[in-house]
Amino acid sequence: MEDVLAPKASVIGFIGLGVMGGSMAKHILDAGYELHIYNRTREKGKDLVEQGAIWEEKVADLARKCNCVITMVGFPRDVEEIYFGSQGLIENTKHGTFLVDMTTSSPSLALRIYEAAERKKLHVLDAPVSGGDKGARDGSLSIMVGGKEDTFKAVLPLFQVMGKNIVYQGRAGSGQHTKMANQIAIASNMIGVCEAISYALKAGLDPEKVLASISQGAAGSWSLSNLAPRMIAGNFDPGFYIKHFIKDMKIALEAADGMGLDTPGLEMALSMYKKLASLGHENDGTQALFRLYSDKE
Amino acid sequence: MEDVLAPKASVIGFIGLGVMGGSMAKHILDAGYELHIYNRTREKGKDLVEQGAIWEEKVADLARKCNCVITMVGFPRDVEEIYFGSQGLIENTKHGTFLVDMTTSSPSLALRIYEAAERKKLHVLDAPVSGGDKGARDGSLSIMVGGKEDTFKAVLPLFQVMGKNIVYQGRAGSGQHTKMANQIAIASNMIGVCEAISYALKAGLDPEKVLASISQGAAGSWSLSNLAPRMIAGNFDPGFYIKHFIKDMKIALEAADGMGLDTPGLEMALSMYKKLASLGHENDGTQALFRLYSDKE
Repeated sequence: MEDVLAPKASVIGFIGLGVMGGSMAKHILDAGYELHIYNRTREKGKDLVEQGAIWEEKVADLARKCNCVITMVGFPRDVEEIYFGSQGLIENTKHGTFLVDMTTSSPSLALRIYEAAERKKLHVLDAPVSGGDKGARDGSLSIMVGGKEDTFKAVLPLFQVMGKNIVYQGRAGSGQHTKMANQIAIASNMIGVCEAISYALKAGLDPEKVLASISQGAAGSWSLSNLAPRMIAGNFDPGFYIKHFIKDMKIALEAADGMGLDTPGLEMALSMYKKLASLGHENDGTQALFRLYSDKE
Repeated sequence: MEDVLAPKASVIGFIGLGVMGGSMAKHILDAGYELHIYNRTREKGKDLVEQGAIWEEKVADLARKCNCVITMVGFPRDVEEIYFGSQGLIENTKHGTFLVDMTTSSPSLALRIYEAAERKKLHVLDAPVSGGDKGARDGSLSIMVGGKEDTFKAVLPLFQVMGKNIVYQGRAGSGQHTKMANQIAIASNMIGVCEAISYALKAGLDPEKVLASISQGAAGSWSLSNLAPRMIAGNFDPGFYIKHFIKDMKIALEAADGMGLDTPGLEMALSMYKKLASLGHENDGTQALFRLYSDKE
């Protein structure tokens, strides 16, 4: 099964051309693959078509023409529609097609897709990513993969044009579960970063000097190094949208509950981010959690 | 005032020879300073005396002989006794002496020491550290300093034999406040790390592979890289004691409350660690927070 997805030997479909998906699809095109694309808003595929991608009017049309389809959409309900709708992937792809969902979505949905696809002799992976728009642009995404290991090996060349840290995590759903673990670690840490910076400011310290003291040691984290400076500058522009983080935390909390695991830190973070969203900040970046500490909203 | 604390030109006192203080004092001795030492338990000074340090029976004796005294003890009540007791430093040091408290202690106590010392024409700094026993041994501590800037400059040569990342943070108390910001950032993140690892295990993932996926990206942190592997291995040996972390979090929470700052993440972490202590785990390392997720205690 290896090498089936080398350039020239295969036709790739890409569904979902947002900030992440658009850059990822571009890497596939640049690597020499024949690329068919679909997006709800046609406008977002325009640049790719100019560079040689083939626009498809319907998911079903794209599905029939490709031997590997990647999906990178917004919410689990979008994933569900694309895979299970009557015009969807499972109904319309040829036997032997590879279906790779790179959306951050629910582990239980990943399992349902896998099981439905197995019955149709399709090869399915769940392969969410981290690394943000920058990682997507640079082709340096971290990719966390669940599904059969043979399927993983077959799709690996394609992953390698989009990412750097590509880890096979185990059976179907494991990629999504790993991404959930990632989001859970981030959730509570965001609270700690906000509280540390708020404390420093309240104490009359220079927050830049505080970061110089604490960001390289035991308190150090990606969020402290990368998001705290934005908090201090009052820059709440989205790197990662609050509305998407809320989606991820809801999935994680539901999965944790389903496994009988209490996650009080995750619950606290989710409720704080929901409060932010209710105040109209759902399109801010996740560093805007700092508003709850500084705005006294 | 610079160069007053060069080796040969000065006599240094060191009070508190625990795991951290013992290593720090050794570096001062190795740098060529005349070193007088005191510790509640004499035994802990034995090695240093063999290497040339001079043992003092009382804090007051040490105080009278030195032109710079460093304190590195356990709790704020110990600091208070050493500075304000009738046999203490403020009563017994000569005018012009430098007093440097490197204990992680209360910012308000640091301010009280500073003010009392000013009246006696003593030069005071609060200079807590991070980097743990390893940082103390390697001379690579991070040192966060509050007090007058001239005093900081005078003591800098001495800090440089103990640490690497030495940052002047501002007026008296600023060193302690910076250390509190450090502990606050760690507190919530520990919850996130425990929940991420617990989730991964519950989901049937290989936690080592999960760390390979998530520890280099946006979920990455010192605690995730250094403490999660110990959690996974069930190794709860102390790097940093729970009892000391509880002390620090209590100081931080009191200081935050005093400034009118809500820190729900810090409060949650403190209550979880207090629970661990009540279960008899106060001498475990901070990574033993994982017990609350895994033992179902």
